[in-house]
Amino acid sequence: MKAAGLVVEYNPFHNGHAYHLKEAIAQTESEVAIATMSGSFLQRGEPAIVSKISRTRMALQNGVDIIVELPYVYAVQKAETFAEGAVSILSSLGCDSLFFGSESGNIRSFLEAASQYNTNRSHIDQLAQSFLKEGNSYPKAMSLALKGAFCSKQPLDLSKPNNILGFHYVKAIVDKKLGMKPATSKRISAEFHDPLLPSRNAGIASATSIRKELLGSLQTKSSEPYLPKASVSELGAYYHSYQIWHTLESYFPFLKYRLNSMTKQDLQKIYEVEEGLENRIFKAIKHAHSFQEYMETLKTKRYTWTRLQRMTVHILTNTTKKDVENALFESTVPCIRLLGFSLKGKEYLSAIKKDSKSTVVSKASSVSHPSLELDLKASRVYGAAISEPMQSRFSKEEFSDLPILYDEQNKTFLR
Amino acid sequence: MKAAGLVVEYNPFHNGHAYHLKEAIAQTESEVAIATMSGSFLQRGEPAIVSKISRTRMALQNGVDIIVELPYVYAVQKAETFAEGAVSILSSLGCDSLFFGSESGNIRSFLEAASQYNTNRSHIDQLAQSFLKEGNSYPKAMSLALKGAFCSKQPLDLSKPNNILGFHYVKAIVDKKLGMKPATSKRISAEFHDPLLPSRNAGIASATSIRKELLGSLQTKSSEPYLPKASVSELGAYYHSYQIWHTLESYFPFLKYRLNSMTKQDLQKIYEVEEGLENRIFKAIKHAHSFQEYMETLKTKRYTWTRLQRMTVHILTNTTKKDVENALFESTVPCIRLLGFSLKGKEYLSAIKKDSKSTVVSKASSVSHPSLELDLKASRVYGAAISEPMQSRFSKEEFSDLPILYDEQNKTFLR
Repeated sequence: MKAAGLVVEYNPFHNGHAYHLKEAIAQTESEVAIATMSGSFLQRGEPAIVSKISRTRMALQNGVDIIVELPYVYAVQKAETFAEGAVSILSSLGCDSLFFGSESGNIRSFLEAASQYNTNRSHIDQLAQSFLKEGNSYPKAMSLALKGAFCSKQPLDLSKPNNILGFHYVKAIVDKKLGMKPATSKRISAEFHDPLLPSRNAGIASATSIRKELLGSLQTKSSEPYLPKASVSELGAYYHSYQIWHTLESYFPFLKYRLNSMTKQDLQKIYEVEEGLENRIFKAIKHAHSFQEYMETLKTKRYTWTRLQRMTVHILTNTTKKDVENALFESTVPCIRLLGFSLKGKEYLSAIKKDSKSTVVSKASSVSHPSLELDLKASRVYGAAISEPMQSRFSKEEFSDLPILYDEQNKTFLR
Repeated sequence: MKAAGLVVEYNPFHNGHAYHLKEAIAQTESEVAIATMSGSFLQRGEPAIVSKISRTRMALQNGVDIIVELPYVYAVQKAETFAEGAVSILSSLGCDSLFFGSESGNIRSFLEAASQYNTNRSHIDQLAQSFLKEGNSYPKAMSLALKGAFCSKQPLDLSKPNNILGFHYVKAIVDKKLGMKPATSKRISAEFHDPLLPSRNAGIASATSIRKELLGSLQTKSSEPYLPKASVSELGAYYHSYQIWHTLESYFPFLKYRLNSMTKQDLQKIYEVEEGLENRIFKAIKHAHSFQEYMETLKTKRYTWTRLQRMTVHILTNTTKKDVENALFESTVPCIRLLGFSLKGKEYLSAIKKDSKSTVVSKASSVSHPSLELDLKASRVYGAAISEPMQSRFSKEEFSDLPILYDEQNKTFLR
């Protein structure tokens, strides 16, 4: 069976995702859609609005055949590491193609940029270093370096977030000489982080604007025109069960508590806490009433907001430099947690089993792996925002030992 | 000025404490009453129902002249270490006597027991070791050893909690050859942990029963017959400001969050976490919906409930074995934080200043000391149970740089 790979967060799964999925299947002429999805915490350094279990259920009902977790150690990372992890996982699952949305929509421009990068790598890296030294953030420096190196021959606008991600996907495929064919289509939602819902007729809005609506009204009502039915019902069920849609503010009491009981030495051990940031972090938390206030005090030109959010998520989850080192080192043999599959997905996995270079884990508790440990810890921390006794119910669901199985013909969950 | 020393928790200050204070002054013929008071967390391994600031205000209005903090490193400890710390502090403040309540009420029996212990120390310690090996808890083993060593000549019932504390006070005074005279009176409240309020006429009830009433009704009303007016008004003001009376249940979400994001190696570093307890702790937290449930799963015959509560408070405050070692080592030169004083107390402190062997700290932020660091951390963790934006207001009060000053003549706070 021909399989298309997707890198997703589905936060939550909306009409744009459904459109993108259809395009992926059609353009790549695939029979199976495989998604690697961030778990509890996302690339921008924030919690998913609902659990990975709930988002897996949305994805299955909307036609994704296999959903595996993108491990925390790749999911909460800068674009390059995020892309490398995602691409490795999809490749090890035998995907024939990798399909992604981008502002460009032209796959040739990505291939060209990746090949240009490969031939000018040391020059570009040097340029980036000098832009970094001038006080630019890492993405800004990288973007400037690529522009500088390519001059007018620059085929791709690397100031756009989805183009950047796409560039790193394609670069990873080229670098690692993976047999996956990259493909892209133009995103139809105007802007990645467009905070306003468009007119209802369009039926497509950005995930950011949908989350904003959900959090504002605590109901799915105003977002319904932009969401498939399954998403509406899963979101409703989640809120009904746990009385929460997760945001960074949900974790602020825990963040403050942790920082309040940490020494400078403890903080230095946390991943992405660079020298000199510790005092700034302690100062920022001291008088902050909210996550927003904390971030505003912490923000500096040197680091992007997203970079500081990711670092803060690592503080929250107590993820140390050593944890990440161990997990990345061990991940040379990927350990992939299966979150859910359709009957077709099940058939596909059985078929590839004998040739697979990776371990697909169904029972998280049966395997000991440093990367998986971080995912489980992230899940437990994610649950902290849910009040008791609901938190214990959440844990039962989150740490269920078997992946979700969906009968796509009869539209029912078999487990 | 002749000074009487008291070791207190005032959780909260009630009529029994007022009676005890009067007796102390009268029996020891003192002009000044000095109390060393546990701060945020107490000897039984639980948070004080209201902050140390609020309890200091109660004590000053009820006639205590000087209140200094009993550091966390002594306050949340077994009787022996608790007593040694308290006695050292009161001695370094120039107290002429140490006055304590006990079930016995006879100071001769304490002096005799302490002297008997001193002459039979190695024998008693050996006996205690063998009782420990038989699976008894530490206090039980110690009590049995003392009984065994003294046979019928045992002058003191060491199964009573206040007799045990008193024994350790007197032992510490004798051991360290301090110039303080110990004195005691019989406690009039029937039992230390008597959970039921007595008939209203008596006017005296145990702190345990008063807390139970406060927590049950969230009002001071039914406890008012047992509390001085100042306590009623301070308790009311605290609840009004922060919407909380602190219990271990208030901290359960933070405890669960911490344990959920800790490794076994992290847990082993925590003070009082003995080998073999780690797995038991993780297991206990996993399915617990409440602190009570956690404790019930954790409890074993080998350790007392109190010992396990203290250990859990150390987990909550992230107090490591190394932290305690450093703080106790540095405490050979006591660093004493002044929480509040009356005008008479102020005069006393000025008078003893030149002879004092200790440092009385008024501005906690101006001194760096490992023991003080632990107190400040405990205060920050204590604040975690208060919701924002009240938590920030609490911090402002808790970390105020100047001790409380009370004009006892005009019954007003000068700051």
